[in-house]
Amino acid sequence: MSEKKHLGICYYPEHWPQEMWAQDAKEMAELGITYVRIAEFAWSRIEPEPGSFKWEWLDKAIETLASVGLRLILCTPTATPPRWMVDKHPDMLALDENGNQRKFGSRRHYCFSHEGYRWESRRITEILAERYGNHPAVAGWQTDNEYGCHDTVRSWSQSAHKGFQLWLAQKYGTINALNEAWGNVFWSMEYNSFEQVDLPYLTVTESNPSHRLDFKRYSSDQVAEFNSEQVDILRKLSPGRSIIHNFMGNTFSFDHYKVGDQLDISSWDCYPLGFHSQYQMENPLGTPEGYWEDYFQQGDPDYQGFHHDLYRQAGHGRLWIMELQPGPVNWAPYNPIPLNGMVRLWSWEAFAHGAETTSYFRWRQAPFAQEQMHAGLKQTDNKPAQAFVEAAQVAKEIEALGPFTPCEAPVALVVDYESHWAHETQQQGQDFSYFRLVLGYYRALRQKGVDVEIIRPASQDLSPYKLVIVPALYALSEDLSENLTAYVEFGGVVLGGPRLGQKDKNYQISQKTLRLPSPFETLEVLRVGTGPKEFVTVVCDMADQERGKAHVWQEEIITSLPVLFEDTNKQPVFMGENNIYYVSAWADPALMNSILDEVFKAAKIEKVELPNGLRRSKTSIGTFYYNYSKNKWNLKALRLAEAAELDGLELPPAGVALVREGIDEL
Amino acid sequence: MSEKKHLGICYYPEHWPQEMWAQDAKEMAELGITYVRIAEFAWSRIEPEPGSFKWEWLDKAIETLASVGLRLILCTPTATPPRWMVDKHPDMLALDENGNQRKFGSRRHYCFSHEGYRWESRRITEILAERYGNHPAVAGWQTDNEYGCHDTVRSWSQSAHKGFQLWLAQKYGTINALNEAWGNVFWSMEYNSFEQVDLPYLTVTESNPSHRLDFKRYSSDQVAEFNSEQVDILRKLSPGRSIIHNFMGNTFSFDHYKVGDQLDISSWDCYPLGFHSQYQMENPLGTPEGYWEDYFQQGDPDYQGFHHDLYRQAGHGRLWIMELQPGPVNWAPYNPIPLNGMVRLWSWEAFAHGAETTSYFRWRQAPFAQEQMHAGLKQTDNKPAQAFVEAAQVAKEIEALGPFTPCEAPVALVVDYESHWAHETQQQGQDFSYFRLVLGYYRALRQKGVDVEIIRPASQDLSPYKLVIVPALYALSEDLSENLTAYVEFGGVVLGGPRLGQKDKNYQISQKTLRLPSPFETLEVLRVGTGPKEFVTVVCDMADQERGKAHVWQEEIITSLPVLFEDTNKQPVFMGENNIYYVSAWADPALMNSILDEVFKAAKIEKVELPNGLRRSKTSIGTFYYNYSKNKWNLKALRLAEAAELDGLELPPAGVALVREGIDEL
Amino acid sequence: MSEKKHLGICYYPEHWPQEMWAQDAKEMAELGITYVRIAEFAWSRIEPEPGSFKWEWLDKAIETLASVGLRLILCTPTATPPRWMVDKHPDMLALDENGNQRKFGSRRHYCFSHEGYRWESRRITEILAERYGNHPAVAGWQTDNEYGCHDTVRSWSQSAHKGFQLWLAQKYGTINALNEAWGNVFWSMEYNSFEQVDLPYLTVTESNPSHRLDFKRYSSDQVAEFNSEQVDILRKLSPGRSIIHNFMGNTFSFDHYKVGDQLDISSWDCYPLGFHSQYQMENPLGTPEGYWEDYFQQGDPDYQGFHHDLYRQAGHGRLWIMELQPGPVNWAPYNPIPLNGMVRLWSWEAFAHGAETTSYFRWRQAPFAQEQMHAGLKQTDNKPAQAFVEAAQVAKEIEALGPFTPCEAPVALVVDYESHWAHETQQQGQDFSYFRLVLGYYRALRQKGVDVEIIRPASQDLSPYKLVIVPALYALSEDLSENLTAYVEFGGVVLGGPRLGQKDKNYQISQKTLRLPSPFETLEVLRVGTGPKEFVTVVCDMADQERGKAHVWQEEIITSLPVLFEDTNKQPVFMGENNIYYVSAWADPALMNSILDEVFKAAKIEKVELPNGLRRSKTSIGTFYYNYSKNKWNLKALRLAEAAELDGLELPPAGVALVREGIDEL
Repeated sequence: MSEKKHLGICYYPEHWPQEMWAQDAKEMAELGITYVRIAEFAWSRIEPEPGSFKWEWLDKAIETLASVGLRLILCTPTATPPRWMVDKHPDMLALDENGNQRKFGSRRHYCFSHEGYRWESRRITEILAERYGNHPAVAGWQTDNEYGCHDTVRSWSQSAHKGFQLWLAQKYGTINALNEAWGNVFWSMEYNSFEQVDLPYLTVTESNPSHRLDFKRYSSDQVAEFNSEQVDILRKLSPGRSIIHNFMGNTFSFDHYKVGDQLDISSWDCYPLGFHSQYQMENPLGTPEGYWEDYFQQGDPDYQGFHHDLYRQAGHGRLWIMELQPGPVNWAPYNPIPLNGMVRLWSWEAFAHGAETTSYFRWRQAPFAQEQMHAGLKQTDNKPAQAFVEAAQVAKEIEALGPFTPCEAPVALVVDYESHWAHETQQQGQDFSYFRLVLGYYRALRQKGVDVEIIRPASQDLSPYKLVIVPALYALSEDLSENLTAYVEFGGVVLGGPRLGQKDKNYQISQKTLRLPSPFETLEVLRVGTGPKEFVTVVCDMADQERGKAHVWQEEIITSLPVLFEDTNKQPVFMGENNIYYVSAWADPALMNSILDEVFKAAKIEKVELPNGLRRSKTSIGTFYYNYSKNKWNLKALRLAEAAELDGLELPPAGVALVREGIDEL
Repeated sequence: MSEKKHLGICYYPEHWPQEMWAQDAKEMAELGITYVRIAEFAWSRIEPEPGSFKWEWLDKAIETLASVGLRLILCTPTATPPRWMVDKHPDMLALDENGNQRKFGSRRHYCFSHEGYRWESRRITEILAERYGNHPAVAGWQTDNEYGCHDTVRSWSQSAHKGFQLWLAQKYGTINALNEAWGNVFWSMEYNSFEQVDLPYLTVTESNPSHRLDFKRYSSDQVAEFNSEQVDILRKLSPGRSIIHNFMGNTFSFDHYKVGDQLDISSWDCYPLGFHSQYQMENPLGTPEGYWEDYFQQGDPDYQGFHHDLYRQAGHGRLWIMELQPGPVNWAPYNPIPLNGMVRLWSWEAFAHGAETTSYFRWRQAPFAQEQMHAGLKQTDNKPAQAFVEAAQVAKEIEALGPFTPCEAPVALVVDYESHWAHETQQQGQDFSYFRLVLGYYRALRQKGVDVEIIRPASQDLSPYKLVIVPALYALSEDLSENLTAYVEFGGVVLGGPRLGQKDKNYQISQKTLRLPSPFETLEVLRVGTGPKEFVTVVCDMADQERGKAHVWQEEIITSLPVLFEDTNKQPVFMGENNIYYVSAWADPALMNSILDEVFKAAKIEKVELPNGLRRSKTSIGTFYYNYSKNKWNLKALRLAEAAELDGLELPPAGVALVREGIDEL
Repeated sequence: MSEKKHLGICYYPEHWPQEMWAQDAKEMAELGITYVRIAEFAWSRIEPEPGSFKWEWLDKAIETLASVGLRLILCTPTATPPRWMVDKHPDMLALDENGNQRKFGSRRHYCFSHEGYRWESRRITEILAERYGNHPAVAGWQTDNEYGCHDTVRSWSQSAHKGFQLWLAQKYGTINALNEAWGNVFWSMEYNSFEQVDLPYLTVTESNPSHRLDFKRYSSDQVAEFNSEQVDILRKLSPGRSIIHNFMGNTFSFDHYKVGDQLDISSWDCYPLGFHSQYQMENPLGTPEGYWEDYFQQGDPDYQGFHHDLYRQAGHGRLWIMELQPGPVNWAPYNPIPLNGMVRLWSWEAFAHGAETTSYFRWRQAPFAQEQMHAGLKQTDNKPAQAFVEAAQVAKEIEALGPFTPCEAPVALVVDYESHWAHETQQQGQDFSYFRLVLGYYRALRQKGVDVEIIRPASQDLSPYKLVIVPALYALSEDLSENLTAYVEFGGVVLGGPRLGQKDKNYQISQKTLRLPSPFETLEVLRVGTGPKEFVTVVCDMADQERGKAHVWQEEIITSLPVLFEDTNKQPVFMGENNIYYVSAWADPALMNSILDEVFKAAKIEKVELPNGLRRSKTSIGTFYYNYSKNKWNLKALRLAEAAELDGLELPPAGVALVREGIDEL
């Protein structure tokens, strides 16, 4: 793992006249680009007709780029199978939840379960890897593109139906085991054979939640299988190259950890403004008031960091940004122009969170097709755009600062994809969202200036952390239960809830007891009530001081733990002592802040209160501060630093500072 | 008809190990339960494969329950046909309005028009009735479960299509008669034969309203036919047992009166918080401000009473509550925990409205499948839940109070399913809802402390009532017209409107005259205007005092009746004298209240103004007061009583009082 | 072209007993009706079975009407093919965007691309034209009815699919030309043959915008072809008669100019209250605050004028109102009763905008089917409705005032259907709407008392205008560019933007340069940013005075033109000098007003500031004022006139005045 930071670029030579390539390559090299990703969507140019290949252009593009010292990331082009393939495999197209077959004409138009397309995916991967796998300029491979983007993980096709039945047969062995696990006796839903099991759609009222959860697991597994088939071929035919996938943000429909396990490097496509617009439009729950407008041209100050840390975990510590937003994009509900400086800020934020390479999407804005309004480093007329200037500045700063790595984080936050599916399957109250809750914890931690390591529920070694937070894990596995128990015994502090460990792996409530698993076994959740986010309850500490508000979700709890905060109905909301703490409601930002204040005391974690939009990350060369807000912040006035590099102590909007001093006392 | 009040319970022995049954039965008996409803969804356990039956478990369950003196309500399990039946009858599944076939995997997945499934329904009913019909512990039968729940009355299937054509042929005789009745000349929609008539869906713009209204009538008739087939078998094979169906609340898609005519007892499934959440989310029109939040943990204080009175009418006076909400449920948009005491309040409210038995759903919370978050009297860990405690209290109070019946109500309110379909078919303004309007009248009456009898439009004897209210009956039949005219002549007071009698049975406007039928023949409705609920018009009496507001719907009227209230454009809103009154707009709660004040004077009805959330019902042993609000109300301070039993004069939230005195002067 | 104004009526003899016809005809003539439109939806009465015709009734109806001197507009009944035709051509029904086939049972249930139905359309046109084409009472023909109403232009049928492929082949010649024009290399979307091109629907994410734009062009062309086939037959078989189509309002899915080119007279169906309700419910962007409620019973004061001027352009100066709203209608979300006098006001407004004939829909309210709540001049009981009285008044006033024509307008506004499709295809920010923007310009102009001529982008002679406004024309053709350049050189003033000329005809951005075409070549649009309408930016002039607000859309511009207004980020919003002006953002009404103030100075256009809801139009006999507001306006107090006819100087709500004096100084 190199600690040197690099820049990359996404390039589509097939979109431009060959005459431009050499000049493009030269300018990339001059800008300080190390890596160029190519051939991502080029299948129709590589294989314009079935079995008939055109290599000259790609050979030439590779040589042109390599000739100026650029290193290449090649892609399997499987996210965009050409039109002729649909004639070959008419049923490779996925079906939507209404049973309509999706049409050719955009991208990601394949069903992960389709055996014929799986074969094509292996075939084209093999052909590409054989041709370029040992080319000296090829540094790595990207598999496919943005698995799950455009809601493409789940397909209601015949292939998925058959595949699901087989998967169930393998999982349960007998149909009675499945009937038992799902509780199918409930509404006479018992099956006599696996062949009778439908995909869980178009039912009269909701289908069995265990049924739906299993289908989500199955669908996620298909993504991992699809990826692993490409990975196996690439490993064999292109030894020594890094295998990467570019995950999408805001995509929780498959288990990124499982795919990450197959990769050398985890990367993601980081579009702060696009995500901010999408996310805020969908459901802003848990986002502080004013964020929608205040960060419209900068992005949510915690959304990028959350994904950096999530995908760094998926990559077991190795992270790239494969695509970074360079200006306005085309695909969000609204597409603002980024504040000047934000492209640089996002780049440094990514590096500070551990990214090794930050690659911009794309070299030059395309003048045609779906993304013609998506900016690039260069305008369609080939003049440099604003992002070009900022990328050049980053390149210089990389040289000046040299290599570095993130420091170890004092807080671990358990994030679990299956819990997202489980809560989404039965929300109980329609405002609940697992990922919004988890992001709420993350945000509250980051506002206190604390670095966070996102960990898997299967993580083994918790000893590096002063605090482990476990929100809304629907099923607490025996492993994690033991692990946390041991961690607590050795002095670690754990904060759980709400909705922690209330179900088993089959999505059933334990009949024997309502006690939570250890180390939370003093807690018993009798009932849960839900309400709309508008109905808030004031939450006070035992001195009757208001500490924030709860809403959306409220557990009725019996516990021997001391109650620290309670609501106006005297229901315990936050409880704990020594090393074990639990929160039984959805806390608003103020309450989340108060809870962390208490838990930080127990865990002996130092914190600051960072002002609006200011965030920081500790690294081996100092602490980076980045200013997402539209205000100036003076780090000295805020008592955060005495001296700072890059933009200095007086941090303007979109400013970045590096504070070498003061690292240890933070 | 017994006047003794009873408790019941819904029990699913098939969900629990046989070892638990005896203890369960014992505890039920000890709690004071009389009736146990079983086998509701047990088809897959009774007939796990086609034609192969498993009786041992059900025999044993019945014996176990009977052995401690419990009396059984058995169910035909037809709401949940097992999976193998779909192989036998692939087209028994209903189609939705987009033409998509619904899938197996939840419940109510059958089309009422499907002959094959009708045969299966008769078959399983016969088999069950033959086996258990004369068992001494069997007190009654429930047919199917919650007809119409999950929008299952109307199906766009081939069976429904053919059935509808046949129904039309029988109704109209010749296709020309149909063309005439529907006015098909209008857009060249004339048919040459009944085979050409489609189901009214997926048309380019709205289809003929007469076409849609007939399809709603047809669909409603199928429910009645389906039910009657089961009833006929049960009557024959299980003589002397009560035949019951459990209607759902908030379900107006079929004519409950027609089904009720076939039953011995009408019952319904009463989920005050679930309905409050659904209803408020859908369209809160007509609900006073603040109700959504103020009654979030108690339910709308008039919604239960309305349904009790509606379904008591459907049962010709005989009413049960088959399922009563015992705690938070799982299926509403939001699912709060009921205020402590509400389960008891709902029980007493039901008894006071004439329920003979109140049965809780369910004995023990299921730990699996769709309703695992639906509370029971017992928790999944078999400990008593809050509702257990409240049910036990009700059982004791039943013993203490002895039998009673409701008093005769001074006011009759005409409620008509067909009018709901008619207004829903052509709303004219999109905020209009017949049932919301009717509930608005009901609410205003109840706030004045007055008991209401909901009556059918075909009701014959109006002499018991001091006042008859007829809102928005789209077609005033000759029978009702004569009946009301006679009633008025003998001194009765009638209040009609808005939208009264404006169409004929074929959903056509009379060409001859715009006069309303007698006794409203002095009224002529020239035009109607509609607007959004936000656009309100102030309504004043003739002394120019504001009496409330009108919105949504406004008729332009010519009448010789004295105008009592008019809007700011001097349009008459409320008019009448002596015995005949009419309101020509949608009245907000304040205006509705003012109107009733005037009409009550004419009808010589005594009234009080009950404070927020306090309601009362007169019975043969005194007046029950129940407090839905979160305030305490002192009945003495309110001059409602000098002494009270149960919770006494100082009525806490969720409190219930019985006032023996003062019955007559109220 | 006659300058005498006429009244017309829509009449459906087939809806009424023959006994009523003679009296109806007599009353029409007495009322002052000149034209009667009949047989619009009468196909099932003319040809009740395939090939079997019933002429007696229609012959008699025509004779009855003709006998009192009424002149007839006959209709081709193709908007409502009878039910038997669907048996003949089962695939003539259009498919919706989900691939569901629309059903028979309303109207417009045909696919424009279906060859079989095209044949039927020609057949019935020929049969009717042969029978009645030379009847002396027949003055004209209406083709079909309201093309495009109910979203019927685009069909996703097999016929449309095949037709589209053929159209593409004819347009592009080779598949590579299409691939190039659409930029299909982008996501490997390249086709090997035209047979591979799908209709652009049900894709995983958005399909290629060029693909969608071409499908919209194709669909629009089918409407024009369909119409031309009828026109050709009518011209041949019914010489000397006017051929008319009645366009619908609020319908931009096909190019009305192309259809208009085929007609003698362009007409439209004018439903001010229905459109106001629909339009405001959809998206009120650009409408001043309060309009929704303030004009609820009058209609948007600019919506009718905009359509009059648009369709007068489509008819090359010849305009009729074929259907005018006579009272409440049935089909809008809300259907209010018009303010008394509005039917007269709408009639005079139409005449003042150049309508030759205003025809009311309909003679008598139908008591059955879909539109039974749609008012007529007469009630269902045959008594006169309010509109009858107002029509009679208009008839008298027509006689009194004599013939007149509109004056030439000083301002031309370019309106382009293809730009609407282009912006709708890629909105970039979801609040953007081309027609709302254009209507915003129109409204601002009209509030200044200025008449507007709506012109086509292909208009040749701009010399009559002092000012030409070109908003959001996505592609500025070479012709128009040259035309505007010449116009500017000769002293004309032009105002462009936002989003002007940014793409080429293939919906691609020019790669060579970001400069706009001449005469805007000093402008270069670097980037565009979009936001929700709630996020407004204050816009000030260079003296830092606020002049209004911008939102939704903001171009980042480089220009050598002087900046006149800029936003708080110092981005130019309005710029120009001498004869060339450009606005680079969506202006709110206040900003639009300020911009016009500046441009009017340059163009030397006199203006007034008309108060709320007062509008005026200059004609050859004087200036008409109409008062849409609920206030009285005194024209003298407003310094608009010294004397006025019709309702006089003190103009009540719904009042109309004619000011003979002062024409020249205005």
